[in-house]
Amino acid sequence: MSEDSPYWIEGTVPETPTPAEYPEPWGKTNVVGARLPRVDAYERVSGSAVYPSDVILPGMLYGAILRCPHSRARVLSVDSASAEAMPGVHAVITASTPEADIPWSYRRGPESRLFPSLCQHEGEAVAAVAAETPQQAVDALRAIRIDYEILPHVADQETSSDPESPKIWDDGNELPARPPYERGNIATGFAEADVVLELTFTTACEIHAPMETHGCVAQWDGDRLTLWESTQGVFAVQARVAEILGLPLSKVRIVGHYMGGGFGSKLQAGKYSIIAPILARLTARPVKLFLSREENMLCVGNRPPSRMTLKAGVKKDGTLTALAMDTLSTPGAYAISGFGLEDWQIRDLYTVPNVRTSNRFVFINAGPARPFRAPGHPQGSWALEQMMDDLADAIDMDPIVFRLKNIPSVSQARGGQPYTTTGLKQCLTDGAAAFNWETGRSRPVQKTHLKRGVGMGACLWIAGGGGPPSTAIVKIFADGSVNLNLGASDIGTGTKSVMAMVVAEELGIDPHAIQIEHADTATTQFATPSGGSKTIPTESPAVREAAYAVRRRLIELAAEQHDLAIEDLELATGAVVSKTDPAVSFPITELEGLQRRGLVMGVGYRGPNPEDVAITPFAAQFCEVEVNTRTGEIRILRFLGAHDSGRVMNRLTYDNQIFGGITMGIGLALTEERILDQATGKMVNANLHDYKIPTALDVPAEMASLAIDPHDEQCNTTGAKGIGEPVTIPTAGAIANAVFHATGVRITESPITPGRFLEAQAAQAEEV
Amino acid sequence: MSEDSPYWIEGTVPETPTPAEYPEPWGKTNVVGARLPRVDAYERVSGSAVYPSDVILPGMLYGAILRCPHSRARVLSVDSASAEAMPGVHAVITASTPEADIPWSYRRGPESRLFPSLCQHEGEAVAAVAAETPQQAVDALRAIRIDYEILPHVADQETSSDPESPKIWDDGNELPARPPYERGNIATGFAEADVVLELTFTTACEIHAPMETHGCVAQWDGDRLTLWESTQGVFAVQARVAEILGLPLSKVRIVGHYMGGGFGSKLQAGKYSIIAPILARLTARPVKLFLSREENMLCVGNRPPSRMTLKAGVKKDGTLTALAMDTLSTPGAYAISGFGLEDWQIRDLYTVPNVRTSNRFVFINAGPARPFRAPGHPQGSWALEQMMDDLADAIDMDPIVFRLKNIPSVSQARGGQPYTTTGLKQCLTDGAAAFNWETGRSRPVQKTHLKRGVGMGACLWIAGGGGPPSTAIVKIFADGSVNLNLGASDIGTGTKSVMAMVVAEELGIDPHAIQIEHADTATTQFATPSGGSKTIPTESPAVREAAYAVRRRLIELAAEQHDLAIEDLELATGAVVSKTDPAVSFPITELEGLQRRGLVMGVGYRGPNPEDVAITPFAAQFCEVEVNTRTGEIRILRFLGAHDSGRVMNRLTYDNQIFGGITMGIGLALTEERILDQATGKMVNANLHDYKIPTALDVPAEMASLAIDPHDEQCNTTGAKGIGEPVTIPTAGAIANAVFHATGVRITESPITPGRFLEAQAAQAEEV
Repeated sequence: MSEDSPYWIEGTVPETPTPAEYPEPWGKTNVVGARLPRVDAYERVSGSAVYPSDVILPGMLYGAILRCPHSRARVLSVDSASAEAMPGVHAVITASTPEADIPWSYRRGPESRLFPSLCQHEGEAVAAVAAETPQQAVDALRAIRIDYEILPHVADQETSSDPESPKIWDDGNELPARPPYERGNIATGFAEADVVLELTFTTACEIHAPMETHGCVAQWDGDRLTLWESTQGVFAVQARVAEILGLPLSKVRIVGHYMGGGFGSKLQAGKYSIIAPILARLTARPVKLFLSREENMLCVGNRPPSRMTLKAGVKKDGTLTALAMDTLSTPGAYAISGFGLEDWQIRDLYTVPNVRTSNRFVFINAGPARPFRAPGHPQGSWALEQMMDDLADAIDMDPIVFRLKNIPSVSQARGGQPYTTTGLKQCLTDGAAAFNWETGRSRPVQKTHLKRGVGMGACLWIAGGGGPPSTAIVKIFADGSVNLNLGASDIGTGTKSVMAMVVAEELGIDPHAIQIEHADTATTQFATPSGGSKTIPTESPAVREAAYAVRRRLIELAAEQHDLAIEDLELATGAVVSKTDPAVSFPITELEGLQRRGLVMGVGYRGPNPEDVAITPFAAQFCEVEVNTRTGEIRILRFLGAHDSGRVMNRLTYDNQIFGGITMGIGLALTEERILDQATGKMVNANLHDYKIPTALDVPAEMASLAIDPHDEQCNTTGAKGIGEPVTIPTAGAIANAVFHATGVRITESPITPGRFLEAQAAQAEEV
Repeated sequence: MSEDSPYWIEGTVPETPTPAEYPEPWGKTNVVGARLPRVDAYERVSGSAVYPSDVILPGMLYGAILRCPHSRARVLSVDSASAEAMPGVHAVITASTPEADIPWSYRRGPESRLFPSLCQHEGEAVAAVAAETPQQAVDALRAIRIDYEILPHVADQETSSDPESPKIWDDGNELPARPPYERGNIATGFAEADVVLELTFTTACEIHAPMETHGCVAQWDGDRLTLWESTQGVFAVQARVAEILGLPLSKVRIVGHYMGGGFGSKLQAGKYSIIAPILARLTARPVKLFLSREENMLCVGNRPPSRMTLKAGVKKDGTLTALAMDTLSTPGAYAISGFGLEDWQIRDLYTVPNVRTSNRFVFINAGPARPFRAPGHPQGSWALEQMMDDLADAIDMDPIVFRLKNIPSVSQARGGQPYTTTGLKQCLTDGAAAFNWETGRSRPVQKTHLKRGVGMGACLWIAGGGGPPSTAIVKIFADGSVNLNLGASDIGTGTKSVMAMVVAEELGIDPHAIQIEHADTATTQFATPSGGSKTIPTESPAVREAAYAVRRRLIELAAEQHDLAIEDLELATGAVVSKTDPAVSFPITELEGLQRRGLVMGVGYRGPNPEDVAITPFAAQFCEVEVNTRTGEIRILRFLGAHDSGRVMNRLTYDNQIFGGITMGIGLALTEERILDQATGKMVNANLHDYKIPTALDVPAEMASLAIDPHDEQCNTTGAKGIGEPVTIPTAGAIANAVFHATGVRITESPITPGRFLEAQAAQAEEV
C-alpha cells in the first residue's frame, strides 16, 4: 500500500528497531556509571514527594485493624455493636460481614480467611473499622468485644515437632519435606579430607521494619478501584486484589510512585490491600489504612530464625572435599514465601565436588516469613564463611588464600553452567589490597581488654541479570525534552535515576530533564515487582532499546527530510549531525517529522537472558572490629565492600546499596532479634526501642566500596547484573570472623550481643 | 539475529501492523454505531468525576485576578501595600512584579503584556493575588488601589472606523484587509439573473459561557510544574505555558481529565494558565485560580457581532447565478482568533458560478473573540439561508426544491475537489420526509394571533475527517481486560466512550470494561486540541489501528503457540478461534505470550487524509415555530436535524451533539446578545440572568435527529467525518425562515427578541 492510498498510515513504520538493528553493548559511556544525584532528590528531601502514606483525599476516612493479642486462640464471639455506635465510626467489619467473608490462601500450607476464627499468631486480623479520624478508629477497635478461647501454642521451632507439642494445624507442625540436594558423594569427600569440622550455627529472626509501614489508600469510582499502595510491584498487587475482589484488571488501578522501603516485605498485596477497599466500598468514602509500627513488627514479615549444622572437609593444601548441611527453619504460622535457601551459598560459592544439604521447616505460632533482602543467604553465609575461617585456621592458611584456592568458573549447583563473568577472585584480591588486609591480619596480639581484629566474607547471589518481561516507552517532545514511561517501582534504590541515565546516554540529554511516569498500572507498561536484585538489569535493556528507537527515528527523519543516508548521520546533543562533515547539523527541534507528530516515541522490550550460562553477582566484604572483652561490646571500625555486579550504572546509588546492605548485615550480626516470650508466645520487643535496628552510631565512620566491574557483554545490553541483595549476604559472617580474629572466640549464634560474647568467652576459658 | 542470541529482544517484532496489513474500512459493525451510554456516565452523574475546578490539594491557596472596570483606561499607579498586609494573603503580583512582567502577544495585531498598562477592554488583567480562602482573595483585590486615566473608547464596530472615533491602537482601528474572494464574474452573474435581491443581516455578539468557568490549579515540584486545567487540549496548553515560562516541555505537565465545556474558548492557554503558576511559585504553595462567571463573560471569548450585506441572483428555474457578500466584524480589542469565515457557506454550500465576498474587521474596546462552535458559519448561514428562502419565495418555488436544484458534487471554494461523499441531497429530501415538511408548509393561513410556520436551513462544515497527528496505545491485560491510552481531551462530547467502542469493536470486549488514560501530557501520547469537529475522525483511526495491532498480535501468539497459520485464525470474544473449525478455540488468557509479557500492547498512528478530495459534513435542519403576533414571543414546537457526518460512531452521543447544537442555535436566533453600554463601553448583562442562554423551557420537547450515513470509505478507516459544529450552523436561519413562513415577517437581526419581531412586523405593516 502506497503513501497515496487513503489507508496508508503515517508512522506504521515500526518505531522499535528490528533485532538486526538492536544496539550493541556499550563501550565507553558518558552518563552511565557517573556518580549522579537522584533525579527526584529535590522531591525526596523537600517533602514534596507524595508517598502513599502521604496521600490525602477529600472525604477520606481512616481504617484500622483489630488484631488478636494471643499467640494462638479461637474467636468465640465478636460484639461490635458499641463500636458501631461510636462517634465518627462509619463501618465495622468482621468475619460475619458478608463482604469480608473471604478465603485467604497461601502459597503453601493450609488455607485461612481474611478474618480467621482460628488465630494462629499474635496480630491475626479479627476485625476492622473505618472512622473520621485515626483516633476514632483506634477507639472503635478498643470498643469491639471479643471472646477468645486461648489455645496452646508453639513459640520455638526447636520444640515444634516434639510429640508433646500442640498441633498447630490438623496436618501437624512439619511442612512437607523437600528432597535433599546432593552432589558427588559426601562420604567419599569426608574420607579424602585431612581435616573435618562440624559446627552448628543459628541466626535469630529479623523483623521487616521499613521506614514507611505497610498500607494503602483505597478509592472507588463506581466499580473502578484505585489503590495508592506502598509496594514493590504495582502489577503484582493489581493481580492479587483483582483476583480476590473478583474485578477485571482494567478496573483495579494501583499507584505506587514513592514508597518508603520494602526489602522483600512489599512484593505482594497484604490483607490491608483488601480490607481498605472493602471499607471504602461500604462507606462510599476513600479509606486510608496504614499499619502501626507494632502491627508492622507482628504481621508483615520477617527473616525466619534458622539452625544450620554444617560439616566440612578440607585437605591440607586447602582443597575443599565435602560440605554437608542440615537446616531447620520456620515460616511462622503460615507458609507464605521467603524461607529456605539457607543452603545456596554452600551449594555454589566454592568449588566442592561433594555436597549434601537438607532443609526442614516447621510451623510455630508467630508472624509470617517474607522474602527478606537475599532470603536465606545471609543465614547460610553466616555458617559457611565462619566455617571457612575455621578450616583455614585448622590448616594454618590465610582465609583469603584458602578461598582463592576454591574459586569456581561454573555454577556447580546449576549443573556446570559457565558464569558470564566471575569477579570473585578480584573481589578477594583487589578487596584485600584496598582494605590493607595483610596489615590488619598480622597485627600482634594486643595486651589491652580492647582487642582489634579483621575479618572477611565472600558470597554470590543466586539470581543475576534480571529477565523478561519488561516494556518501556520513551517519547521526545517537540522541544527535544523527554518523557520515560515504565512500570517498575523505585523502591528507594534509585531506579528512576538509573533509567534516566540510560535514556540520557542514548539521546545525549540531561538526565534531570527527563520526565518519568512509572509504577502505575493505568498509565505504564507491565513490570515485575522490584526485588531479587533484578530491577535494573531487567528494566535497563528495555529502556535503552526504547531510547535507541527514538534516536534511530530522529536520524531517519533527518535523513528523509534532507535526503541523506541514515548511515552517514548520528545523534549529537540536540541535533542530528553528519559523521563526516561537522558542519552538517540538523537541530532535532527543526525536524518536520517531530513537529508534525508533536513527539516521537520509541517502544523497548526486554528479551530473554542467554541460555546455558549463569549470570551471577559476586562479592567479598572486609571489616575491622574492636571487642571490649570485659563488657562484650563490639565496635565496627571500618568496612569495605568489593562487589562484582557487572556494570556500575550510577556509582552513587551503587554505593548507597553497598553501605545500606552492610548496615543491614550489621543488624543481623550484632543487634536484631525477635524475642518471643515462651510462656505466652507473644513478642516482647515489638517496637523500635527494644527491637534494635542499627543506628548511625552502630555503623562505622569508615565505609568504602570497591567496584569490580568485569565488562559483561553477555548478560544483557547494559551489562548490569544486580547489586541489591549480595550487599547484605557476607556481612555478618565477616564480622563474626573479625571477632574471632580479635579474640579467638567463635560465636555461632546471631546476634552477637555483649551477653552472648561474654558467655562464649567464658565457656571457652573453661575448656582451656 | 536469532532468538538464541543474547541481543535478540522479545517483541521487537513491530507491534503495529505494516501498511499492507492495515485494517480495511469496517463493513457491518457490532458495537460502533450503537446507542451506548457514556463509559464515564457513573462518574459524571455521581459527582465522583474530578473536574479541574474540583481539584483540592493539601495547602492549596486561592488565586484571583483584579480586572480593569473601564472599557479603556491607562493604569497610572498601583498600590498593593494594604492588600499584601491583609490576613491570609500570601502574594500580590502586578506589572511591576519581575516574575509577572511578561509580554503577551496575539496571533495578529498589536502586542500587549500579562498586566498591560493600557487596558483595552473591561476586564483586562491588572493584578492578581493568592490567599488562604477565595473570600480573602477577593477582599485583597478590593484593597488594591489603582489610579486609572479613563480613555475614550469605541463600543460599536459600525463607528469604529469613523474619523472622529478614538484610535484604539496607534495603527488605527482597522485590521489589515484580506484580499476579497472571487469566483467567476458577479456582474455577468447578476445580469443573467431573473431576480436579484439584496439584504443586510446582522448577528449579535454571543458570549462563551461553559458550565465550568476557565481556570486551573498549579503545583510546583522543584522546577516541575503540574497544571490541572479545564482545557480542550492539554498539549496546546503545555506548549504555550512552557514557552512563556521558559521551561522544557518535559517539565510542564498538563492534566485535563474532565472539563465542563469549551466550545472553542478553551483551545489555548489563558492568562490564568500563567498567573496561577507564578503565584504558586512565589508562595511555594499550590494555587487554584478559576474565573468568576462575570470574568468569564468579559474575558474568555465570544462569537463576534457581524454585519453581512448579501446580494443574490437567481433564474426563474431556480438556478443560482451570483452571490456577493460584504461583511463587517470585530475581534474585540485584540486579534486573537476565531473571527472571519462568515462567508464560507456563501462560497461553497450551493452551486454558484459567480461569487464575490469581502470581509472587514475593526477593533472595538471589548473582550476578545475566540473560536465559537463553527466560527463564522452560523452568522453566514443566518444570512444565506434566509436569502435562499426569499429567493425561493420570489420565484415561487418551495425552499427545498430550490435548494435541491443547486447541490454541488465538488467543493467550488477548493477549486473543484470532489467530495468523498455528499449527503446534502438526502439531508434535504429524507429530512423533509421525516419532518413531514409538506404538511407543515401547506397549512392554511391561520386566523388567530398565534401563527405557526415551518422553516429549514442547510449547511456544510468547512473541515471534515480530522487529520494527523494522532497516536494511541492499547494494551490488553493478562485477564483480557483492556487499557486505552490517548492524549485527546473529552470535552463532553463522548470521545472516551466512542474510542472505547472502537477498541471494543476490534477486540470483541465490553466497552465499559476498558480503562482509559487520556489528556495528560505526562502519561499519554501527543494529540491536537479537541475542536474543529475533528476529535473523533482524528483519533478513532489511530485507536482502531492500535486495537487492531493487539488483535493481530494475539492471533500471532496463538498461531506460534499452537503451530497454526495466522490466516486460519481470528479473534472472537475472549479467544482466538479457527475460522474453519469452531471447535478450535484458544482463550487469550491462556496465551503464553500474553502471560509471559504481563500484557500485549499495540501502537496506532493516524495517517494523512486522502489528497485532492474534500471531506465535508453536510446537514439540513427543520423546525416548526409558533409566533404570538401580539407579544412577539416565539415558541419552537419541534426540531429535526438531518446530518451527514459520515459514520455514526455512537448514536447517543451523536444525538447529544445534534440536540446541543440546535440548542445553541436557538440562543443565537432568539435570546443571546452581549449588550455594551455605548456611553461607558461596559457590558450591562455580564451574568446568566441578563445574558440569556436557552434553558429547558426554550427548547422544544420534540427534538429528533436523522442520521444520513453514506458509507464513506475514503475519508479514513472509521468513516467518521465530524459532527460537533455543523449541528449549530443552520439552526438560526431555519428558525427565522419558520417565523417568516408563519407571519410573513422577515427578521434580519439576531436575536429575534419579541421587541425586534414587533418592530419588524409594524414596519412591514406600514410598507403595505
